Amino acid sequence: MKLVLLSGGSGKRLWPLSNDTRSKQFLKVLKSKNGDMQSMVQRVWGQLEEVGLASSAFVATGASQVDMLQAQLGGEVPLIVEPERRDTFPAIALAASYLFSVAGVDTEETVAVLPVDPYVDTAFFEKLHELDSALSASGAELALMGVAPTYPSEKYGYIVPSPKQYNEGAGYLEVSHFTEKPDEEQAKDLIEQGALWNCGVFAFRLGLMLDLLMENGWPVSYQVLLESYGDLPKISFDYQVVEKASNVVALPYEGEWKDLGTWNTLTEEMDMGVIGKGIVYGKSSNAHLINELGIPVIIMGLSDIVVAASPDGVLIADKAASPAIKNVVKQVEGQRPMYEERRWGWYRVLDYHKTDDGQQVLTKRIGIAAGRNLSYQIHRERNEVWTIVQGEGMFALNDRIYPVKPGDVLQIPKGAKHAIYAETDLEFIEVQMGSELIEEDITRLCMTWDEIKAICVQTGGLKS
Amino acid sequence: MKLVLLSGGSGKRLWPLSNDTRSKQFLKVLKSKNGDMQSMVQRVWGQLEEVGLASSAFVATGASQVDMLQAQLGGEVPLIVEPERRDTFPAIALAASYLFSVAGVDTEETVAVLPVDPYVDTAFFEKLHELDSALSASGAELALMGVAPTYPSEKYGYIVPSPKQYNEGAGYLEVSHFTEKPDEEQAKDLIEQGALWNCGVFAFRLGLMLDLLMENGWPVSYQVLLESYGDLPKISFDYQVVEKASNVVALPYEGEWKDLGTWNTLTEEMDMGVIGKGIVYGKSSNAHLINELGIPVIIMGLSDIVVAASPDGVLIADKAASPAIKNVVKQVEGQRPMYEERRWGWYRVLDYHKTDDGQQVLTKRIGIAAGRNLSYQIHRERNEVWTIVQGEGMFALNDRIYPVKPGDVLQIPKGAKHAIYAETDLEFIEVQMGSELIEEDITRLCMTWDEIKAICVQTGGLKS
Repeated sequence: MKLVLLSGGSGKRLWPLSNDTRSKQFLKVLKSKNGDMQSMVQRVWGQLEEVGLASSAFVATGASQVDMLQAQLGGEVPLIVEPERRDTFPAIALAASYLFSVAGVDTEETVAVLPVDPYVDTAFFEKLHELDSALSASGAELALMGVAPTYPSEKYGYIVPSPKQYNEGAGYLEVSHFTEKPDEEQAKDLIEQGALWNCGVFAFRLGLMLDLLMENGWPVSYQVLLESYGDLPKISFDYQVVEKASNVVALPYEGEWKDLGTWNTLTEEMDMGVIGKGIVYGKSSNAHLINELGIPVIIMGLSDIVVAASPDGVLIADKAASPAIKNVVKQVEGQRPMYEERRWGWYRVLDYHKTDDGQQVLTKRIGIAAGRNLSYQIHRERNEVWTIVQGEGMFALNDRIYPVKPGDVLQIPKGAKHAIYAETDLEFIEVQMGSELIEEDITRLCMTWDEIKAICVQTGGLKS
Repeated sequence: MKLVLLSGGSGKRLWPLSNDTRSKQFLKVLKSKNGDMQSMVQRVWGQLEEVGLASSAFVATGASQVDMLQAQLGGEVPLIVEPERRDTFPAIALAASYLFSVAGVDTEETVAVLPVDPYVDTAFFEKLHELDSALSASGAELALMGVAPTYPSEKYGYIVPSPKQYNEGAGYLEVSHFTEKPDEEQAKDLIEQGALWNCGVFAFRLGLMLDLLMENGWPVSYQVLLESYGDLPKISFDYQVVEKASNVVALPYEGEWKDLGTWNTLTEEMDMGVIGKGIVYGKSSNAHLINELGIPVIIMGLSDIVVAASPDGVLIADKAASPAIKNVVKQVEGQRPMYEERRWGWYRVLDYHKTDDGQQVLTKRIGIAAGRNLSYQIHRERNEVWTIVQGEGMFALNDRIYPVKPGDVLQIPKGAKHAIYAETDLEFIEVQMGSELIEEDITRLCMTWDEIKAICVQTGGLKS
């Protein structure tokens, strides 16, 4: 059996900590067994290792998450990278083509697809092993995992079993149909009928997915599918495959399962009341503070509250009200992200303002990871000043390369070709100035440092 | 009659908006009649103008508040500036010596001392006129204003009248003694006896204070007292004068009087629920947000809450719990102020961190007001890089002066003599780097731009 973990979604429900480049699964807010802070992705990967499944697992994701996944799970984690974000059906189709045409997996082998961040007991992952035998024993096209409901939730999708007698020995249910987000009364009825919560775990024989691709005229070769990825429909695996399948079974899982996708559910699993600089004072119970700002946050006399502060903003919410943040945050969108992690490192916006004479000024602190570089680029509408504050590297300006060290000041006029390469972890303070400061004002001449070196003349020292 | 308004105190009770350089009386959180935001100081000054007393008023303050008072009340406001902060007795003594030896006020003239920021009806200031006649009619040494209590508060000091029959026609009470912060039962008794809240308004003949100075061997000449100001005891006017006086009367004031010194009392008088960038969402009543950070703050489902955010920190408090902030904030002190207003302008800290190799890096955005300058100075332990982003000025470096404009980058190595003068409002981004970044690492060679120009050679352009 092979596993495909889907690592997707940007998610506004954990604003301001999650944003377009930082998905919730990467937030280090859980405590690991050794006491370190860990993310949801790290917790799941550790559990897969415990049950011996990590070596069979692949992670399907988008380009923007590659660095983060490698940083959190190690450089060896096998990734299947979508060329663009579409939906779960195209992502799983691409993964299937990769398993078949690159990894050489047999078409009869079982593939189990699951989310990268369920908050569950290790028993959940133990149970994955049974998906394989359920497919064999039932002859079904799909075998799902379903969570035994603990209350009549209106938030989840339900897997509804056939009214046929339950096959005790087989350990699986035959699925009749699916019901999304019923009201409470319907949910109670569904639970009476033995329905399970759909937790996004699907298993099938690899050949099923390949057949489906071929039937629709889509390629099964990974390389070819990669190039025509934009032709696949933006549709979920549930709609395209699961709901159309004629023969589906489900394995009931009785243990703990939680969706930590909102602040109230996430903070329930946080051992620490305060992460970052701050104080919870006086009569405050069930208060959680996650503070990524460098300044202190003081909470006084408030209970059942979550406070999350990041360079993007500050959320102060009654826990029960916090799931609605997704809707509220729309009202503050359109502002520039204040912190981003990128392929080459990260940056944080320190200040942005317009001067009295209409010029824009943007100040950033930028970190380039050792061995990485910024592409060789030109800005038409702004000049930049970089003050190196840490690390050593090489700076390319108008086809000449200069070694740089802390204290050096690099002036980049409008129109100048420039790049920088970090020999050790490098940091600088950047001041951008211009009439219009937009991320799109960039012409990339080449990407890798080897390419840049081939163009430029190396010099002994900084020219100034 | 002359008025002396005492503008003192730094005050932690409105943290994080008030700090050592920004006292609560300067926070622009109240709405003026024309709809603009105004501070408590501005509100009081407007009321004094209404009742014709502004032209008789002086403001006694410390050097750190001079620029702020002039900015908020206009450059013409007459200030009496203490050379150092001591207590209310020395401040009032200095003011008396100023009125006598500089302003030529007659020793028989009445001087009324009052706080710079009471939140009261204009009738309060109308009533100040009566202090003069009360002194004459009673022959008392001191005439106070007292506020008729509206409830048995445990927070205030009480002016307790003599049990003699009330002199209806005179309109004043003879004072027996003072009681500080009684418990509720005692407070009820005091109110029964006709006691008043002490609101810090004292009137006396100028000669009384001069006699007191002379009796103790302290000078009555302003210039001489200024030089020996450090010899005056650090003691309040209440202890040194009021409680020792044998003959004191008090005028009862029946109107509105509030101490807006804590977040719960201040927000009661704020017309706007949100000042700055932010949203109060959902079931939230009696919620106030004052946000000086450039990033959005979202409050969800919380009532009776005050949120105040500044570069120094974020307070999130149940209103009833908010007065205790004074004690809590001690636990986060010792951090560098993130925003300060100075004689020459202001600065805001954008980032402070230590690099992996133990160097410190501090990034500031600095504004110099047109016509002002930084002193000619040297730092021993740090170098600085200034990127000019707005305005024009003159930059002095090692005895040479260069004109500067937006886009110029000024590099100041350790040990270099430097200063800057703003011809128009000037702004720059400063990056400091060094092994130890402390405000004390500064040797000032001279202060005024005329002095600096006398030392330096003027040049045509920047050397680089």
